[in-house]
Amino acid sequence: MRTAPDLDVTAIEAARRREAELTKPAGSLGRLEELAIWLCGVQGRCPPDPLDRITLVIFAGDHGVAEVGASAYPPAVTAQMVANFLAGGAAANVLASQAGVRLRVADVSVAGDHPWPDAVRRWHVANGSGRIDVTDAIPVETAVTAMAAGRAIADEEIDAGTDLLIAGDMGIGNTTPAAALIGVLTGRTAGEVTGRGTGVDDQAFARKRAMVTAAIRRGTPWRDDPVRLVAAIGGADLAAMAGFLAEAADRRTPVVLDGVVTGAAALLAERLTPGARRWWVAGHRSTEPGHAIALAELGLPPILDVGLRLGEGTGALLAVPILRAAAATLTHMATFASAGVSGR
Amino acid sequence: MRTAPDLDVTAIEAARRREAELTKPAGSLGRLEELAIWLCGVQGRCPPDPLDRITLVIFAGDHGVAEVGASAYPPAVTAQMVANFLAGGAAANVLASQAGVRLRVADVSVAGDHPWPDAVRRWHVANGSGRIDVTDAIPVETAVTAMAAGRAIADEEIDAGTDLLIAGDMGIGNTTPAAALIGVLTGRTAGEVTGRGTGVDDQAFARKRAMVTAAIRRGTPWRDDPVRLVAAIGGADLAAMAGFLAEAADRRTPVVLDGVVTGAAALLAERLTPGARRWWVAGHRSTEPGHAIALAELGLPPILDVGLRLGEGTGALLAVPILRAAAATLTHMATFASAGVSGR
Repeated sequence: MRTAPDLDVTAIEAARRREAELTKPAGSLGRLEELAIWLCGVQGRCPPDPLDRITLVIFAGDHGVAEVGASAYPPAVTAQMVANFLAGGAAANVLASQAGVRLRVADVSVAGDHPWPDAVRRWHVANGSGRIDVTDAIPVETAVTAMAAGRAIADEEIDAGTDLLIAGDMGIGNTTPAAALIGVLTGRTAGEVTGRGTGVDDQAFARKRAMVTAAIRRGTPWRDDPVRLVAAIGGADLAAMAGFLAEAADRRTPVVLDGVVTGAAALLAERLTPGARRWWVAGHRSTEPGHAIALAELGLPPILDVGLRLGEGTGALLAVPILRAAAATLTHMATFASAGVSGR
Repeated sequence: MRTAPDLDVTAIEAARRREAELTKPAGSLGRLEELAIWLCGVQGRCPPDPLDRITLVIFAGDHGVAEVGASAYPPAVTAQMVANFLAGGAAANVLASQAGVRLRVADVSVAGDHPWPDAVRRWHVANGSGRIDVTDAIPVETAVTAMAAGRAIADEEIDAGTDLLIAGDMGIGNTTPAAALIGVLTGRTAGEVTGRGTGVDDQAFARKRAMVTAAIRRGTPWRDDPVRLVAAIGGADLAAMAGFLAEAADRRTPVVLDGVVTGAAALLAERLTPGARRWWVAGHRSTEPGHAIALAELGLPPILDVGLRLGEGTGALLAVPILRAAAATLTHMATFASAGVSGR
């Protein structure tokens, strides 16, 4: 198994030295200092690039569990929300626009025929997925194709010169496979990893927990085989996201992770490419209980904790200005020497 | 005692209704939704104004405790950092520039004569302050003058059309009076409210705690008299910040609070104008232990918790993009009806 490349140690050391010279008490910018040092490590230069070219890719797919009440919304909303992204009306559009981030949608596994532009439909590899409590989400060969599609999407963006990637999700029912994957990959129970997703009522929540319990049981034999695992209890969209995240690390491109669905994909990607997590930061911690568990397993403390549970990349987009602020302080602050300020 | 004006209930109700119509599960944007509703309440309109004109005022002042080792830095650094702000090299300059926020420095009580522009020096009311463990910081009449100066600065900015104000601090030693004020106003001990500020070593930390203990004892008789209290154990800069924060509320202008020094000033301002806190949000929680205590007393949960302990307004500046994102989602997202997305 190929491991992820290392971050640039020389740039990290240069960043640490520079942090110590800036006109502020050492460590007083807290997480900003860590993020600035990390940016130097992933970019291989100090001071870091200002992150002008950031792309969010939203991976859309349907999930069989939504047909049997895993979500507060009907399955048709997945395709309706893809149309909403294309029209610019979703939360992700607004936050991407605020943050100066380009937004791209990939229909990996939305059910049905849709007249979307080729750029959206090109990587369509499945029409939804099976009910993971009773059957496989997708055939193994589709999981392989979907992972390759995610890698190809990452390659396109990296080749076009992106500085940083974000993966977002859209799929009614997708917090059910996310919870099941996190359960298997962290050894937790459905009770620990299952949340209310879009906001299901008590009855639907009980049903969802039961589906996650069954899916965890079905997936556990494949704990050490991420391709078979995502085929059994994930879906093509999650497979594509995992490929995308692994490829970003392979290609030395930093990523801001979003919520619980991206978190599940990140756990898969870390199995595909051990060490990939060094190339990622966690944009936020969502209120879905499985997300905190996934981030703890990955060793990635969230930048934000503001009660989001929307997905679409929204929590990662909110963290972008903080990353840019981190880069800017390391690049533009005066040093004690240059400003004539006395050190301690 | 005059209480602060109420927020606009009609605009808040309109914002709540609009939040429920946007293409996302209800509540899924978490804190962003609360902030958007609050912005409508303070602005008296829905959707809210995009916050194009934001001003940070940094209140600079010296503190007698710094002469006896309360800080890791020598007192001369206060004036040197004012010069650094004017030259654009401090963290606050870089983060203000990133966030599109105007930065203004007010030398309220920096010790010594300095050849700064009139706009910086105009509200200078004291040359430093006394050692608050053994004597008053400033005379009561100076506290009155400083509070009026802070109110005048707020008035200038509000009259010039600012949408939102931020108060920042600069003053070597200023976390000592901040801790003492928070101790008196929340009934806590020096052990609970005292932190390492710029990063003092164990010996200096013990000395600082002893000074805070003595100052809390000196200030406790004035617990219900904010003017006498800030004169006894605060300083002119803290008095000016308190006046500034109270005036913002009186003038229906929202504020993003910064760290522990602003937090102490906010506790004073809430005593000056009960209910003023409804016009403020907490930009972040610093690592100074007194800050969390002050925010809890004010009932203001922080937006960010990223390990900052710098002051200067930096934590508030980092929260600005999140406030703007909150406003943008409420203003620009599509509704279920307009986007043709099915509700639950």
